[in-house]
Amino acid sequence: MLELLIPLDSDSGKPLYEQIYDYIRIHIADGKISCGEKLPSTRFLASHLQVSRSTVELAYEQLLSEGYIESEPCRGYYASDISELYLSGTKFPSGRPFLPQKQKTPYRIVFSPDENEFAYFPFGAWRKISKDLLAADDTTLFTAGEAAGEWELREAVCRYLYHARGVNCLPEQIVIGAGNEYLLILLSQILGSPKKVAIENPTYLKAYQTLLHMNDTMLLLSRDKSGIRMEDVRRLKPDIVYVMPSHQFPMGTVMPMKRRLELLRWAVEKPGRYLIEDDHDSEFRYRGKPIPSLQGNDANETVIYMGTFSKSISPAVRVSYMVLPEPLLFAYQANCGFYASTVPKEQQRLLASFLNQGYFERYLNKMRRVYKGKHDLFLSLLRQEPWVHMVYGDYAGMHLLAELNTQMRAEWIVKEAGKRGVRVYALEEYMVPGTRDFLEGKPTLLLGYGALCEKDMKEGIAVLREILMPH
Amino acid sequence: MLELLIPLDSDSGKPLYEQIYDYIRIHIADGKISCGEKLPSTRFLASHLQVSRSTVELAYEQLLSEGYIESEPCRGYYASDISELYLSGTKFPSGRPFLPQKQKTPYRIVFSPDENEFAYFPFGAWRKISKDLLAADDTTLFTAGEAAGEWELREAVCRYLYHARGVNCLPEQIVIGAGNEYLLILLSQILGSPKKVAIENPTYLKAYQTLLHMNDTMLLLSRDKSGIRMEDVRRLKPDIVYVMPSHQFPMGTVMPMKRRLELLRWAVEKPGRYLIEDDHDSEFRYRGKPIPSLQGNDANETVIYMGTFSKSISPAVRVSYMVLPEPLLFAYQANCGFYASTVPKEQQRLLASFLNQGYFERYLNKMRRVYKGKHDLFLSLLRQEPWVHMVYGDYAGMHLLAELNTQMRAEWIVKEAGKRGVRVYALEEYMVPGTRDFLEGKPTLLLGYGALCEKDMKEGIAVLREILMPH
Repeated sequence: MLELLIPLDSDSGKPLYEQIYDYIRIHIADGKISCGEKLPSTRFLASHLQVSRSTVELAYEQLLSEGYIESEPCRGYYASDISELYLSGTKFPSGRPFLPQKQKTPYRIVFSPDENEFAYFPFGAWRKISKDLLAADDTTLFTAGEAAGEWELREAVCRYLYHARGVNCLPEQIVIGAGNEYLLILLSQILGSPKKVAIENPTYLKAYQTLLHMNDTMLLLSRDKSGIRMEDVRRLKPDIVYVMPSHQFPMGTVMPMKRRLELLRWAVEKPGRYLIEDDHDSEFRYRGKPIPSLQGNDANETVIYMGTFSKSISPAVRVSYMVLPEPLLFAYQANCGFYASTVPKEQQRLLASFLNQGYFERYLNKMRRVYKGKHDLFLSLLRQEPWVHMVYGDYAGMHLLAELNTQMRAEWIVKEAGKRGVRVYALEEYMVPGTRDFLEGKPTLLLGYGALCEKDMKEGIAVLREILMPH
Repeated sequence: MLELLIPLDSDSGKPLYEQIYDYIRIHIADGKISCGEKLPSTRFLASHLQVSRSTVELAYEQLLSEGYIESEPCRGYYASDISELYLSGTKFPSGRPFLPQKQKTPYRIVFSPDENEFAYFPFGAWRKISKDLLAADDTTLFTAGEAAGEWELREAVCRYLYHARGVNCLPEQIVIGAGNEYLLILLSQILGSPKKVAIENPTYLKAYQTLLHMNDTMLLLSRDKSGIRMEDVRRLKPDIVYVMPSHQFPMGTVMPMKRRLELLRWAVEKPGRYLIEDDHDSEFRYRGKPIPSLQGNDANETVIYMGTFSKSISPAVRVSYMVLPEPLLFAYQANCGFYASTVPKEQQRLLASFLNQGYFERYLNKMRRVYKGKHDLFLSLLRQEPWVHMVYGDYAGMHLLAELNTQMRAEWIVKEAGKRGVRVYALEEYMVPGTRDFLEGKPTLLLGYGALCEKDMKEGIAVLREILMPH
């Protein structure tokens, strides 16, 4: 029988059973105790090492549960057959893996359509609500929440959507999720596969990519100046049409009522047809009243309405919502009911209070003024430039499109501006991959201004001027 | 030309342009202004109504952008053709939709394996960190974060995993996400399709369902008392094997070292093979040392390690993580790099501080003692019962399996206990749908104790006794 000379050190701070376990494990791993070798009985080893039998038993139990040793009834313990296989490689011997940590942006000024202004955010209110939420040592904050989202947030969103967007729904129809892409993943599973989804081009590419990843067949709709054409929809025969009627991204078009109604009529003609209404930034319209939602005109339960707090509060908040028409509630429950909510309960309650206590509405009103100011300034600055042919997509959102008087390609301008530390976007960048060459018309830049101050706007425009009007 | 007698009320609080807009919109919608009818010019209407021309222009602009009217250059404004289509249905004429709000559980005592004890959570520390985070009016909390998760949280998780679980990785390899299911959705997209995934049965059914929804082909591995058998893996020829080596759910098995090494060897034999290691609750082991992770023994970058804060902190926190082996980092970037993180930045920073300031480790140590106390008590209570044949899955996690001395079917017992207000779970409930009949052995109940006090445990056991030993 194997004799184990285990050097125990009762002053080492490491429990004795662990010292025994480690010694045997290492010796099995490196082959010094070979496969099939019989180990001493716990009684024998305990007396040999002058420790209690339970100490040895604990060590053996751990070795057993990890499979280093095996026990045979009435016979004892044997080393398992693992030595030849034992792997103990070191991590990345060739150095760190190739994927670098996200780099700091190399740009001085970024005309991003996705960046917001946070200078006016009511941190005090947010902090107070957060503090009050946690003050009570309320353990219900930590128990698993409802899959579709916390009821109080769904109610608050429901009320908000009714008043602000004319969306006609009940809290039961609302699903809260961690961002639009996650909700599209759910939605694709709710709608089932295989299905054909028609989407405008150019568009919000993340929606296109998400649905493509979910194995949906993606059909591309070209546009006239008012947006999609019904004849294209009828020709392509999709099951689902994804639209942004209130403010198409990136074109800024508002879908005319006539086309809305044609779309609604198309949807109702055949069971299984649905319209996805992505209402991403309709909070920010600077002239006239908000454009009502398509969902509000839908009497036949064919519109899936999607919205987000990414623009109205912040993308880091990670809260979006969708309103399912009644016929999809059962499919949601059946196909996706098992997914736990993706938004922390604390975050949901915080947001519900932020809405219910009126902070959200006041902040929106404030930000509408702030962004309108930025919009008006940026529009007037752009219109002064002789290289700007036309500006469109105006009076809403956080970006403008500038059609240029130039023979240069938009992508070349983007590159040249980048070299000078300014990030602008070519309209082509929002075309579905492989279709960029189909974009017609003058070279066009997309210029977001939401996060920029006057100085940066002017400096950025000066850089573009330098490129477009070299002396 | 149409004459519009618009009754304006300058005291109504409603802007004049909106009153004009509403009047025209409603009359177009209900057909009182018919399609093609010419509207008065803005100049004429302004003078007619005694309002400024810009007021009328704003109303017309809104009507134009919503498509109620059309403008023809040099000719004027015309009502659009929408009246016949105008839909104004009321919501759910037949009453509320059928999907009820989540009901309160009808049970008095729930032996859930997913519920935790929160009585010892350091709310004070959580609150303080949260307060400090928000105190600075720090707008970077609100800007879009890194797709894979905040760097400081990935570093903190990386350190924790190395020390607590022997996981060998760099923060670059860690992806933070809103729960295991979301990470599995990402992972399925990273690994690409079509692929075959082998999973144990019974298992964590949400993982099975999620991968099935992602169109993966699911293969089922039956088990012997140590878990999966390599001959089954070789026979079924999967691309991916999903395992829980440290503590299989629901069986509680620890995978022996020999099988781990066989699995690792299988994975390295052919490119594209991967092992998913779901390490869901290995923090809670009450005897001996923690079982090391499979990932720690993998020198060939074949293990995808997944873990969660759902058990160690709370399911409502919605934070899980996965460690991608180096060969998958590029695929992650290429296929899923466009998905924004699903966890609020505030939550990520809070959690990073909770880990970095030592609270998490102290809380884990505390909870390990708390759950060990509950475990020992519950185990001893169960072992006293004559209807309990054997208890297994012990010394870890938050549930036990009780094999019963009875001819009754486990599902019947579950139903009877339910009638008496006690929710217990049949082992069958964790079998993949359609395979329940293949479960061998004595009727077995799964009994979670994480959230229960002594009184509830005793009361629940008494109810089972009443059912199993009727006098």
